[in-house]
Amino acid sequence: MTHDRAPTLDDVARAAGVHKATASRALNPATRDQVRAETARRITVAARRLGYVPNTIARGLRTSRTAAVGVLIPDLTNPLFPPIVRGIQDRLEQNGYTALLVNTDGDEARERAEFAALRSRRVEGFIVATARRRHPLLTEAVREQISFVTVNRSVELPGVPAVVGDDADGVTQAVAHLRSLGHTRIAHLAGPQDLSTGAVRLRAFQHAAPSSPVVECAAYTEAAGRTAAGHLFEHFADTTAIVAGNDLIALGALAVICARGRSCPRDVSVVGYNDMPFADRFRPPLTTVHVPHHEMGAQGAQLLLERLRDPGSPARTVLLPARLTVRGSTAPVR
Amino acid sequence: MTHDRAPTLDDVARAAGVHKATASRALNPATRDQVRAETARRITVAARRLGYVPNTIARGLRTSRTAAVGVLIPDLTNPLFPPIVRGIQDRLEQNGYTALLVNTDGDEARERAEFAALRSRRVEGFIVATARRRHPLLTEAVREQISFVTVNRSVELPGVPAVVGDDADGVTQAVAHLRSLGHTRIAHLAGPQDLSTGAVRLRAFQHAAPSSPVVECAAYTEAAGRTAAGHLFEHFADTTAIVAGNDLIALGALAVICARGRSCPRDVSVVGYNDMPFADRFRPPLTTVHVPHHEMGAQGAQLLLERLRDPGSPARTVLLPARLTVRGSTAPVR
Repeated sequence: MTHDRAPTLDDVARAAGVHKATASRALNPATRDQVRAETARRITVAARRLGYVPNTIARGLRTSRTAAVGVLIPDLTNPLFPPIVRGIQDRLEQNGYTALLVNTDGDEARERAEFAALRSRRVEGFIVATARRRHPLLTEAVREQISFVTVNRSVELPGVPAVVGDDADGVTQAVAHLRSLGHTRIAHLAGPQDLSTGAVRLRAFQHAAPSSPVVECAAYTEAAGRTAAGHLFEHFADTTAIVAGNDLIALGALAVICARGRSCPRDVSVVGYNDMPFADRFRPPLTTVHVPHHEMGAQGAQLLLERLRDPGSPARTVLLPARLTVRGSTAPVR
Repeated sequence: MTHDRAPTLDDVARAAGVHKATASRALNPATRDQVRAETARRITVAARRLGYVPNTIARGLRTSRTAAVGVLIPDLTNPLFPPIVRGIQDRLEQNGYTALLVNTDGDEARERAEFAALRSRRVEGFIVATARRRHPLLTEAVREQISFVTVNRSVELPGVPAVVGDDADGVTQAVAHLRSLGHTRIAHLAGPQDLSTGAVRLRAFQHAAPSSPVVECAAYTEAAGRTAAGHLFEHFADTTAIVAGNDLIALGALAVICARGRSCPRDVSVVGYNDMPFADRFRPPLTTVHVPHHEMGAQGAQLLLERLRDPGSPARTVLLPARLTVRGSTAPVR
C-alpha cells in the first residue's frame, strides 16, 4: 500500500485495462451506472488495490455533486434513532453517498443553524427526522426547491416525500388487544401534538376508544411520561390499561405505577410504541407496537436518491406496517 | 430569510461592521481563533441572520481543509456507540468540524474500503472506535502519517493518541464487590482477546481472582455471551458469580441462568460492563461498571483537533475513570 508517488487515474485505467474516461465514470457515484457493472467492479478493485484516492472535493466543484446528504435527527442517544440512521447509512453507502448527521435536540434555532451549515457543505439534499407538523424551516426549503424527505414524522406541506409507520393501525391493534383482555378503562398518554406521530396516534385512539381519558405529554421522554401518568392517576384512579405514545413514555408510566404501590401487569396493563432495542429485557418485558426502523431509514434514503436523480418525480408517502408485539406488560383485567 | 440575491461575504462584513478579511477569518473554522471571540460571535450571528452560505468546498480546495473528520465504529445499533458518537459530534461541532460516520461491522475489508472512501473525501483525520490490538490498516496509517486517535479501544502501536476507560480498575472494583458479598466461586466471561478491552479486563480479572474460571466470548454480543455461559456452567456448575466482559455478554449469561432454572441474583450474581442505556430497567436491574461514553467521545474529538492543529504534539492516552454501579443483579452468596 505504499508507493513512490500517489497513483493516478491513468494507473487505475491501465491496471483495469480500460480507457481513462471509463475509469473516471466508474469511480464517480453520479456516473457509475453509465458503465457495465462488471467493468465498474474491475475498476473499483484496481483502484482499491493501487490505493488510488480520487479527489471527491474537486469533483464536487466540477459537477456540483458532493454525494453527501444532510440528516437531521433530534438526538442520536434516543434509542429510536440509531436503527433509522443505520438504515439511511446502509442505503446511501450502496449508492456511493455519505450522510452528514446532526442532532438538533428539538431546538429550532439550532436546527436552522445546522441546516445552513450543511448547505454550506453543499449537501445534495436532506433526510429529516425532526419534522414538526408546521415547520417554518421546511416551508422555506420547499419554496427554495431544496430536495428533502421526512422519515418517521411528516410535515403538513404538499409535495414532500415521507416514510412513516402506519401509526393509526398500530394504535388500533393496541386498543383491540387490551379490549380482548377485558379492559374497558383504557387511557392514552399521548405524544406531543405538534408532531405527526403524536397527532395520528391520538386520533386513532379516540376513534378506537371514544370518550376515554387522554393526557398529552410535553415530550417523548420518560420524564414527560412520568408527569403525565401522575396526572392520569390523580383524575382517573380506576384506569386498568394505558396506551403510551411511545416506549419511553411507557417507561415513565411503569415508574409511576410502581411508585403508587401498584403492579404492572397485575393492576395496570401498559402498551408502548416503537419496540425500542431491549424492550424485551425490561421489567416487565414491554408489550409494544413494532415499527421497522431500519427499513424506514433505508426507504427514506431511497426516496431521496430517486428525488435527486429526478427532481420532477411525484412525491410519494411510504407507509410501513406496524405490528403489535405482545409481551409481559399486558394481562387480563382483574 | 428570502433574498433577491444570495448574500455575500461583503454583506456579512458590512452587517457586522468589520473588514471583509476579518469576516472571512471568523467564518472559517481553521482561522477562527485569529479573531477576538466577541467579534467572531458578532460575525457569525450576522452571517446566520443574513442566511449567508460560505462555500466550504471551495474553501476546502484553497486551504486543503474540509473541516471534516472520519469516524469508524463497528455498528451504530450497538448501544455502546451512540453516546460516544454524540460526544464526538458535540465537540467537533463546537469547532466548526463535522463527522463522516461509517459502520464497519467488524469486517476488515469493509473497513479498508470505507477508510479509502473517507480519504477520497479529504477528511483531515480519523476517530477510530474499531481498533484491534494488531491492526494492519492502522499500522499503514501511522506509516503514511495520517492523523488519527482511537477511542474506547487502543491499538498496540507507539505514538497513537487514545481515550479509553480505566478497564483494569473497573474489573478490580467488580471483583471486590462480589468478594464483599461473600462470593469465592467467581468466573469471567471474557471479551474477544484481539481487542484491548477484552485483554485488559481479562488480565485485571486474573490478577484480582487468580485461578478462577475464564471463558472467552467470540464477540461482545448477547449470543456469544449465551454460548460462553453454557460452556461455563457445563464445567463449573457451582459458580455463584460472573464478571461479564460487557453488558451484552451479561444479558446472554442472564438468559442461560434462567434457562437452567436458576435465578439471578438468588443463585448467581452477574456484573456487566459499560452501563449501557436502560441497564437500570432490565430484569433484574444490572449491576455494572459505568464508563463515561459521551465524555470519551468528546475527549477523543478534542485529542484529534489538537493533533490537527499541531501534528508534532506528543501522543497522549487519556484514561477515564470507571465506576461500579450496584443494582439488582448482585446479592450475598447463599
